[in-house]
Amino acid sequence: MNFITVAAGDIAKGYEQEVKEELGAILGRLEKKRPPCLVGVLATADPWAEQYAAWTEKACSRVGVSFILSRTTTLELDATLHALYSDDTVDGVMVYYPIFGPEKDRKQQEQMAPEKDVEGLSSVFQQKLYSNMRYLDPEGHKKCLLPCTSLAIVKTLEYLSVYHPLMPVPYKLRGKTIGVINRSETVGRPLAAMLANDGAKVFSIDRDNIDLYYRYPKESQLQISRFSPSSSPEYLSLVLPMCDVVVTGVPSEHFKVPVHLLKDGVVAINFSSHNNFPPEISTKASIHVPSVGKVTVSMLLRNLLRLYSNRHE
Amino acid sequence: MNFITVAAGDIAKGYEQEVKEELGAILGRLEKKRPPCLVGVLATADPWAEQYAAWTEKACSRVGVSFILSRTTTLELDATLHALYSDDTVDGVMVYYPIFGPEKDRKQQEQMAPEKDVEGLSSVFQQKLYSNMRYLDPEGHKKCLLPCTSLAIVKTLEYLSVYHPLMPVPYKLRGKTIGVINRSETVGRPLAAMLANDGAKVFSIDRDNIDLYYRYPKESQLQISRFSPSSSPEYLSLVLPMCDVVVTGVPSEHFKVPVHLLKDGVVAINFSSHNNFPPEISTKASIHVPSVGKVTVSMLLRNLLRLYSNRHE
Repeated sequence: MNFITVAAGDIAKGYEQEVKEELGAILGRLEKKRPPCLVGVLATADPWAEQYAAWTEKACSRVGVSFILSRTTTLELDATLHALYSDDTVDGVMVYYPIFGPEKDRKQQEQMAPEKDVEGLSSVFQQKLYSNMRYLDPEGHKKCLLPCTSLAIVKTLEYLSVYHPLMPVPYKLRGKTIGVINRSETVGRPLAAMLANDGAKVFSIDRDNIDLYYRYPKESQLQISRFSPSSSPEYLSLVLPMCDVVVTGVPSEHFKVPVHLLKDGVVAINFSSHNNFPPEISTKASIHVPSVGKVTVSMLLRNLLRLYSNRHE
Repeated sequence: MNFITVAAGDIAKGYEQEVKEELGAILGRLEKKRPPCLVGVLATADPWAEQYAAWTEKACSRVGVSFILSRTTTLELDATLHALYSDDTVDGVMVYYPIFGPEKDRKQQEQMAPEKDVEGLSSVFQQKLYSNMRYLDPEGHKKCLLPCTSLAIVKTLEYLSVYHPLMPVPYKLRGKTIGVINRSETVGRPLAAMLANDGAKVFSIDRDNIDLYYRYPKESQLQISRFSPSSSPEYLSLVLPMCDVVVTGVPSEHFKVPVHLLKDGVVAINFSSHNNFPPEISTKASIHVPSVGKVTVSMLLRNLLRLYSNRHE
């Protein structure tokens, strides 16, 4: 076969193992041995959110982390969150979206208390990310948290050796062109910035237009420019054939990536709950990753350990 | 630094270690414990050949192989070779070129006795290579020998993860475009075929023209077509910007690869004794390998073990 499908579970396994070992090391250094506690807040009836919560619970129990699912209502959400922020036995809080609609959901995420924002979506983390600053403190002790799904895609690309093993950070994606179809504030936009910060040329594609994210090799500052005023088939046919990797997350079962435009041997990664790649992706791609959900869960655990260690060590 | 230089010695180390371990295993299985013996035949005053012989001698002594340098003359070359072929204590023979000039040298190589042809240049090995047959016998017990320098470049590309670690053989170079500047029968042409057999699209560039070597993903047969009737700057400016990897071996200190035509982030490998990449390669390449001589020596040892094992096991 000249085409392989890589399951998220296989990618997640190694990272989950790392989390387990790191947790053992942290607990070994602490006086009181209480394991970290993650609270998932469910104020939506979205079936995907339920699925994600179930995965999270299982993964937590595998690595020795407590997980509590807190079901609440849209009206009580803020009160629930504030109670969790002031509860010293809670180390991380995550909220399942969508709840109110894109804009208000985004506001909620930005206002998360950074000490408990296990998904890395609060304003302070986002600002650091776009300015390519990797630490919260000037001394460089506390690493910033990165958004879980974007980080899961980065780790997937590391697993697939798209990140060059020999090149130094932050040049491991040098020479790579990557298309990201999705520019949400929670995944696509931070992902485009992270990939560009690591040296790739990134086309950020949404329904309205195409942006180019890049960093000149010797500049640390991220540059963003409008590549095309539309993402019509004409513009897509300019951009997609250049991409070594296409990452897509369009939350619709009707959207499919036009396979005939892809470069032969492309690496195809889907993070939408509907696979945006049609079956004929096998005729063009070298590697297809149909979902990253389980990797996202490992990254959530990794972020939780970081919050736990920041608060207790 | 967004650019790294990788030394051939670092690449060779791991392969030399493998040879050492394999030799130990073979000797463990044999009754008589005589170590393998390689004879280098020197009928030329070329300083590069002397250098190469010195490296070979050192490497042999590091891994526990006997090396004998046999100095002869152009007149006595054939007699020297025939004596070595019928000497049962000799396991591999290599001849240092150039001696007579390209055409007659090539004839000499083709006529090497395959049982002692440690460089993999004799007709039988070459025919197998171009037809992508990896074994000498129909049962698939005896692997073919591959030309040392071409094999060294393949191993260099594996070390650099240009060969995709997750893709199955023979698709590990799928999606990669590689330029090979040299079409000699001993290195450039077999290399182009080997890279195409592993899934790459290869532009074989020599002073006269540019050929394209490729294999359709589902066909095992190598295809070669004339890409351009000349390798003028105009044609080079079509081909070089497409190449993810450029391998060059032009035996002249005056030839330099036009760096401005290279793709940003290119992997640049030189196997000429004169580096064909000028210093400004650091502004374009991600990885530069200025020589592969020491890797070639490891491949010579690897080939020697194969001949030794074929004859004695």
